[in-house]
Amino acid sequence: MKLTIIGCNAATPTTTGNPTAQVLEVNNQMVLIDCGEGTQTALRKNKIRFSRINHIFISHLHGDHFYGLIGLISTFSLLKREKDLHIFGPKGLKEIILLQLKLSKSWTNFKLLFHELESKASETILTHEKFLVQSIPLKHRVYTNGFLFKEQPKERKLLIHKALEYNIDKVYYKGIKKGKDVVLEDGTIIPNRELTEDPPKVKSYAFCSDTMYTESIVPIIQGANALYHESTFLEQHSELAKLTKHTTAVEAAHIAKKANVGLLILGHFSTRYPDYNMFKNEAISVFENTEIAKDERVFEF
Amino acid sequence: MKLTIIGCNAATPTTTGNPTAQVLEVNNQMVLIDCGEGTQTALRKNKIRFSRINHIFISHLHGDHFYGLIGLISTFSLLKREKDLHIFGPKGLKEIILLQLKLSKSWTNFKLLFHELESKASETILTHEKFLVQSIPLKHRVYTNGFLFKEQPKERKLLIHKALEYNIDKVYYKGIKKGKDVVLEDGTIIPNRELTEDPPKVKSYAFCSDTMYTESIVPIIQGANALYHESTFLEQHSELAKLTKHTTAVEAAHIAKKANVGLLILGHFSTRYPDYNMFKNEAISVFENTEIAKDERVFEF
Repeated sequence: MKLTIIGCNAATPTTTGNPTAQVLEVNNQMVLIDCGEGTQTALRKNKIRFSRINHIFISHLHGDHFYGLIGLISTFSLLKREKDLHIFGPKGLKEIILLQLKLSKSWTNFKLLFHELESKASETILTHEKFLVQSIPLKHRVYTNGFLFKEQPKERKLLIHKALEYNIDKVYYKGIKKGKDVVLEDGTIIPNRELTEDPPKVKSYAFCSDTMYTESIVPIIQGANALYHESTFLEQHSELAKLTKHTTAVEAAHIAKKANVGLLILGHFSTRYPDYNMFKNEAISVFENTEIAKDERVFEF
Repeated sequence: MKLTIIGCNAATPTTTGNPTAQVLEVNNQMVLIDCGEGTQTALRKNKIRFSRINHIFISHLHGDHFYGLIGLISTFSLLKREKDLHIFGPKGLKEIILLQLKLSKSWTNFKLLFHELESKASETILTHEKFLVQSIPLKHRVYTNGFLFKEQPKERKLLIHKALEYNIDKVYYKGIKKGKDVVLEDGTIIPNRELTEDPPKVKSYAFCSDTMYTESIVPIIQGANALYHESTFLEQHSELAKLTKHTTAVEAAHIAKKANVGLLILGHFSTRYPDYNMFKNEAISVFENTEIAKDERVFEF
């Protein structure tokens, strides 16, 4: 999996940072997660090909997470996109987008498919042949979901020397990779476990922004290879974090530790702080493998 | 008057240019004209103080002219603005903005005053103590207005040596500057024209984007000190200009000539052209005092 940070500012864009947006590449598929104002320009800067984005996930309807969506859709249209575009986000998003298209007498020459979310329980919201997406109910001032992206299980790995040893015809290889046993001409059954080994473990990525500290997400994100967790504030502003339903860096680190994730990526930083390394410094006392998000930074895991 | 170009791209923002937005300073008042996506960030880059903007004028509801408005309003709110904000634009704009505020459970701590435009005739839409604004009905694919900004007439210039000669008390100076005659103690009337001279001529600026070529605007913008006129296309694409209800550089120059303006500023360039100087080159054959808009370029007139 490859994660590109497009923006990780809280609340408002500045001349040095974009509001929330990320591009995740999973099994060669690209998805866009949140889409703050200016995302389309930032995607260009990051040389992300617009045509590769077919799925967009919007966590919640605060402007710093979706004000760039209508502009991106309009540009897709101007670029004569034809492929379907799937948009997942809170109920209301469709109304906002369609009202703006209607009043500008615009339309899209591609199918715009909205999948509006309302459930307060975690559910599988997309089953794609290459990946799965599960919602992560978060606790914020408005209805908010994080998203867990999981690769679809890969095929079992064929042990070619074993297949040759049993003189198995190549025509059976496809089935073997899917877990099938083989019956030889003399009726002998070769169990699949003799011919294959387990595929690489499926990878997963959890995106959690915005939310107050909540351990309810731990079972959902347990063991994820990487977790992006908001940390709007440092400990000195922990009261403000509670008040605005955001998280501190230390709290995010506690979630990472409890969920036993591989890597914690901190983001959604309040622009009041001059140096975002302060977030990492506070978090590593609780969870060592912590990194900070930064526009254009790429994480591979 | 001082005009700062914030953006002049047609259709879509790119890494090198913003969609339409301008800041006009008139008699020490600042107004924002159009507000494409990313305007708030570009305003910061141009070091425009947000608190100085009290009036915003939106020409039409195509995204490249207003998608940045909701973000700017949200940021005003986060910055704890208290002053009223007046927004002039086509009917529908209020619905778009309020729906987004409602769904994000947001509100503004300042008064958001919408002045929705529906008239197809030119009318005075704002009479401020420092300036006037008149709509310029344009012809585009959706309901569109340009805007004519005029300084309020300044006071007459007092001829101080004349006032001293007649031994006129200072208490009358204010009235004289407003055009009043003076009655001396012996009953003699000193007519105002003996005591004053005409104030400097009021300046005006006409903003016309987006529109097809239309001479109907000529009487409205006649004699303006500067005219910003869209020129989305070069002559080689004049058919495309007609089809999309846009203007070529040469057509814009014809309007400038007929309206006898002081300066023509071309903008709203299609991003298909590698060098925007081509627009100027085509226009100057018709109207010599032509300049091209460019992000961050400042015009004083």
